[in-house]
Amino acid sequence: MPPVLSLAVCLFDNVASTDFQGPVELFGFISPRGLPKRYWPTEPGYIIEASYFSVTMDPVYPMSGPALVPTRTYESLQPDEQFDIILVPGGIGSRPGVTPEPVIQFVKNQAPRAKYVLSVCTGAEILARAGALAGRKATTNKRALARIRGDHPEVGWEPRARWVIDGNTWTSAGVTAGTDMAYAFLEHLVGSEVSSVVRNIIELPVRSQEDDEFAEHYKLL
Amino acid sequence: MPPVLSLAVCLFDNVASTDFQGPVELFGFISPRGLPKRYWPTEPGYIIEASYFSVTMDPVYPMSGPALVPTRTYESLQPDEQFDIILVPGGIGSRPGVTPEPVIQFVKNQAPRAKYVLSVCTGAEILARAGALAGRKATTNKRALARIRGDHPEVGWEPRARWVIDGNTWTSAGVTAGTDMAYAFLEHLVGSEVSSVVRNIIELPVRSQEDDEFAEHYKLL
Repeated sequence: MPPVLSLAVCLFDNVASTDFQGPVELFGFISPRGLPKRYWPTEPGYIIEASYFSVTMDPVYPMSGPALVPTRTYESLQPDEQFDIILVPGGIGSRPGVTPEPVIQFVKNQAPRAKYVLSVCTGAEILARAGALAGRKATTNKRALARIRGDHPEVGWEPRARWVIDGNTWTSAGVTAGTDMAYAFLEHLVGSEVSSVVRNIIELPVRSQEDDEFAEHYKLL
Repeated sequence: MPPVLSLAVCLFDNVASTDFQGPVELFGFISPRGLPKRYWPTEPGYIIEASYFSVTMDPVYPMSGPALVPTRTYESLQPDEQFDIILVPGGIGSRPGVTPEPVIQFVKNQAPRAKYVLSVCTGAEILARAGALAGRKATTNKRALARIRGDHPEVGWEPRARWVIDGNTWTSAGVTAGTDMAYAFLEHLVGSEVSSVVRNIIELPVRSQEDDEFAEHYKLL
């Protein structure tokens, strides 16, 4: 079996479910329960295994969509436990003063040694508050970008970008941009021959990082 | 308050969560917990209130993503209860012999008098099995289309389409196409002035029904 990359998805009430569900739908194809070998032109070089963290084991109530069942609490993290990939979604629950403190602490503890740190939409604001974006280029939901830039001038916010890569840190624009970023990330991990099998199953049109019309809509340029 | 349209989302194990989560993320903005009045140029003409049906009240385990908490059982439906909108997602759980019989029965009972019937991906196969597509034009996941066409020659399957509208029935291609269809549906319901507020928040690039590259990939033309 290929090496397993552990993925921690941060859940909290009033998360935008699509922010993480778009990406994990793609990643699920290379998970332990993913596609059988015969689907692949070559075996994927990695397998991704996801854990869903929340403050308690109670259902999480997102902005839209059904309640979600977490698989771990932030508190359950062992002192020496390190996840390979951290995925932080956005939504109303990512706003300052709203996000539960354990989410920020989790990112603060995990991000420095994670192989990859990913955010979707205003999830970037949580990364910024956890100090994970200082001195880095990043993007976020365009409707919120001006406000977040004001609060976090230590981050190089890019207004025109579907997603931004800086080192091991991948941040995307609003909601649906997370799926485009996740596809590029999957391609980065396992190569385009394998990732295109996934893309053709979920019928995802490929977009480029620069293919972004929303910076202009919100007069950010 | 504007008139409320009741939406029934059909859940089952091995559903593709993104199939319904993409659409309900959009619909959530015009839900009772949606955006406050000041966000809208004019008040939306409808409000959508979603119920999530499953065979039991136990968590539903989708193909990818966290387990989901249903809000109703199919069995709980009252004899005179009619939903305005039925949304049927796809995934491995929609395959013949896999879908729980109560899902098929629910669609069979609700579709004839629903204002709108929507499916995403192979959710169309469930609609077909429930007799809701006979004599209608429809589409489905392109990877599965040839097989499903063989099983359901009574349906006018369209190979090149991001989504298809026939009367009150909206069917989309695979996974991500459901979000594009949901946007067009939202626009149809509440007009483009209101729907574009939603689109700009979730940063959804607008696609047309014909903008489909996957029919060609799967040699369906």
